[in-house]
Amino acid sequence: MNPTKSEATPKHAPPGNQPGDQPPGRESQAVLPVRSSSSDSLSTQSKSTAFDRWLMRTMLKQAGNPEIEVVLWDKSVISTSPVSPRTRAVIHNRSTLYKMLIDPSLYFGDAYSEGLIEVEGGLVNFHEAIDRCTHAVDTKHFYRDGLRSSLAWLKRNTIDAARSNIHHHYDIGNDFYQLWLDEQLAYTCAYFADPEMTLEEAQIAKMDHVCRKVGLKTGDTVVEAGCGWGALALHMARYYGVKVRAFNISREQLSYARDRARQEGLSQQVEFVEDDWRNITGTYDAFVSVGMLEHVGLKNYRRLGEVISGCLSPQGRGLIHSIGCNSPRTLDSWTTRRIFPGAHVPSLSEMMQIFEPQKFSVLDVENIRLHYAMTLEHWLQRYEQNLDQVREMFDENFIRTWRLYLSASIAAFRSGSLQLFQVAFTKGDNHEIPWTRAALYPEERRQSRRGEQT
Amino acid sequence: MNPTKSEATPKHAPPGNQPGDQPPGRESQAVLPVRSSSSDSLSTQSKSTAFDRWLMRTMLKQAGNPEIEVVLWDKSVISTSPVSPRTRAVIHNRSTLYKMLIDPSLYFGDAYSEGLIEVEGGLVNFHEAIDRCTHAVDTKHFYRDGLRSSLAWLKRNTIDAARSNIHHHYDIGNDFYQLWLDEQLAYTCAYFADPEMTLEEAQIAKMDHVCRKVGLKTGDTVVEAGCGWGALALHMARYYGVKVRAFNISREQLSYARDRARQEGLSQQVEFVEDDWRNITGTYDAFVSVGMLEHVGLKNYRRLGEVISGCLSPQGRGLIHSIGCNSPRTLDSWTTRRIFPGAHVPSLSEMMQIFEPQKFSVLDVENIRLHYAMTLEHWLQRYEQNLDQVREMFDENFIRTWRLYLSASIAAFRSGSLQLFQVAFTKGDNHEIPWTRAALYPEERRQSRRGEQT
Repeated sequence: MNPTKSEATPKHAPPGNQPGDQPPGRESQAVLPVRSSSSDSLSTQSKSTAFDRWLMRTMLKQAGNPEIEVVLWDKSVISTSPVSPRTRAVIHNRSTLYKMLIDPSLYFGDAYSEGLIEVEGGLVNFHEAIDRCTHAVDTKHFYRDGLRSSLAWLKRNTIDAARSNIHHHYDIGNDFYQLWLDEQLAYTCAYFADPEMTLEEAQIAKMDHVCRKVGLKTGDTVVEAGCGWGALALHMARYYGVKVRAFNISREQLSYARDRARQEGLSQQVEFVEDDWRNITGTYDAFVSVGMLEHVGLKNYRRLGEVISGCLSPQGRGLIHSIGCNSPRTLDSWTTRRIFPGAHVPSLSEMMQIFEPQKFSVLDVENIRLHYAMTLEHWLQRYEQNLDQVREMFDENFIRTWRLYLSASIAAFRSGSLQLFQVAFTKGDNHEIPWTRAALYPEERRQSRRGEQT
Repeated sequence: MNPTKSEATPKHAPPGNQPGDQPPGRESQAVLPVRSSSSDSLSTQSKSTAFDRWLMRTMLKQAGNPEIEVVLWDKSVISTSPVSPRTRAVIHNRSTLYKMLIDPSLYFGDAYSEGLIEVEGGLVNFHEAIDRCTHAVDTKHFYRDGLRSSLAWLKRNTIDAARSNIHHHYDIGNDFYQLWLDEQLAYTCAYFADPEMTLEEAQIAKMDHVCRKVGLKTGDTVVEAGCGWGALALHMARYYGVKVRAFNISREQLSYARDRARQEGLSQQVEFVEDDWRNITGTYDAFVSVGMLEHVGLKNYRRLGEVISGCLSPQGRGLIHSIGCNSPRTLDSWTTRRIFPGAHVPSLSEMMQIFEPQKFSVLDVENIRLHYAMTLEHWLQRYEQNLDQVREMFDENFIRTWRLYLSASIAAFRSGSLQLFQVAFTKGDNHEIPWTRAALYPEERRQSRRGEQT
């Protein structure tokens, strides 16, 4: 899965010169289209009352006094931040403010998509300012509605519901994703072994990092759970000489992946299977799953562990790559309702519900959250560059929704309210394990030397 | 902490040519002294009954039919292994058999120490055969008494009890440990970046691996919880130019460490504090704890997390190095009563009870269990080589107890019933984190290249 807007919410806003961060004051002109209708409505709004302003201040306090300010429909400015904020939300009417009381995450997102809220000073900065307050507040209190709605959605990842949830996000058109992903359509965190890499290079580096972590050897058999557009499966087959069965329930993705396999003469080596991970059969030397766990749902983790245990050979190695978090939490309700129905991002203790009941031996956990922030910066930059083409496909509400989703995701990985874990494991009674992890770093030698010198 | 005999219990016995593995039939002559008293008692024992033999078979079945055989006092041979065992226990009297029904782990260990049980074919092989059955049996059922006794002991890690527990193992004489540890007395898992390293080299490699993982820079301040004989604290001060406060509650270890600091002119840089980790004060750039967590007790993990959170600077990095296991379990009762009172080895989900409540960000988990098997092989080899000197210090019971402890520990790490986790972490809102892990592998380049070529 690609990342998600965080429910959590910063103290020190970073410099605004990253992709997607417009300098303060520029964004509402340059990136966020000003809805003339909402501007019109300003004149019909009554002035804000003392109670309106008290409510807004209370919400900011509950969010931990983030370094932002809020401008109400009558130009009243509200902030509880101890330092001067560099980013602000403009709320165009009273009903948006009152809806946000019920569920701040959901109705902020919806109102932003509808143009009823605008953000100045950078959408990423704005969310990063909020996310950096995560550590200061009990987000479950502030976002109790998000929690409730997420719990309801979590129950839905039956096989049928999973199909519907995946269709919601991934089957909206390969053409759209081609506008802003890398050329192989890898829709998961890249690995910038060198921060100067292009997105294309970093996605290949990620695939190689994964292949090394599961120690692929020519002739191995691999099962992939949740293969997206097939980039990793095809990469493993082409460069590591393995046979792959790759499972996915997104039709559009599979159709694209099969076409690519045919065009590249890899159809004999890679089988793309339209089925749920629960129906994986056979025995394999390696199990890989990159960006699917977020869609599995916590209550299915034990089952996932059983499926992996059942399909992995005695010396088999596995890797799960997933968005995660530092302590158990639920995603915000906007993300789980508008972006990724059924999604859950686990803490490491939650991920262990996959491995520990099966007595898997966890060999290696790597957290590369900053690489996902960088990946998303590339995506957002390409998205904004190709906005004219996006506009031919979708309406303004969609455009703003996706801008919010990509921007808030950058903020979440920068601020640490989301993590990216790669967990490598094997069966507990397998003793054919790598002696050290040095072999994972064949290309990065010069890079690491440079790091040492600085 | 050094490792511990595993409660778990193999399918394929490995070649017997590792240090500590005597070829079948040799050990009782060459390594295990035959107690003449127990030999004498053989003649006074009645023949084994059908019921005795049924009991023994039942115990073996419950242990998962390990690839061992048991010889009773009247030479009856019992095995439930499907293949021909290469290692055997000889039980010299009926009362030992019946005691083992009550608590197999505790009374096997005690009887071995007393010479009432002898093992032929290698103590390591014997335990490895038993440990490899872990995956086939519910060890909690088989070792329910071990569980119960461990739970009772777990409650004991108050500050006073911790002092008593640590004194039990670590204050039995530095002279003894000098006979079989490396020259710096590092009593924790070494890191054989190259398997051909000597024990001395591998202990230094481990210290450097830890220092790199917490990114030490000249001038940093470091707090170490549980510093043993001070090797790591002194290494950090000498080679990384940091100031260290190192906590320990073992008087003998501290006295040795302070002498070394004085002799090496490092007393200004390293302060050795006789106190419990709960009393750590101050703020530091790094927290390290190598081999102490095993003595902390599960119920104190949250408190440990609070202490670390309280003493770590905003950009501080931490590392905990600990024996662990693949799924939650208790140590066998022999280990927790005779070797390490109050000890508990955590699964990763249990370790997360330290990190998640404080919203620490776990950056890196590495499992180097096979390095602990190799470390222990060196220790056992040196122990056996210096047996004459050990014999001048301790009686035969002690000698056999320590041989059992070291041998069973090798078996536990080889078989995977114990793991060795290094967990690197930082505060959740720290963004000064390493970009990749490549800098951890400056010395291992040639080694990893060799690995790729094979």
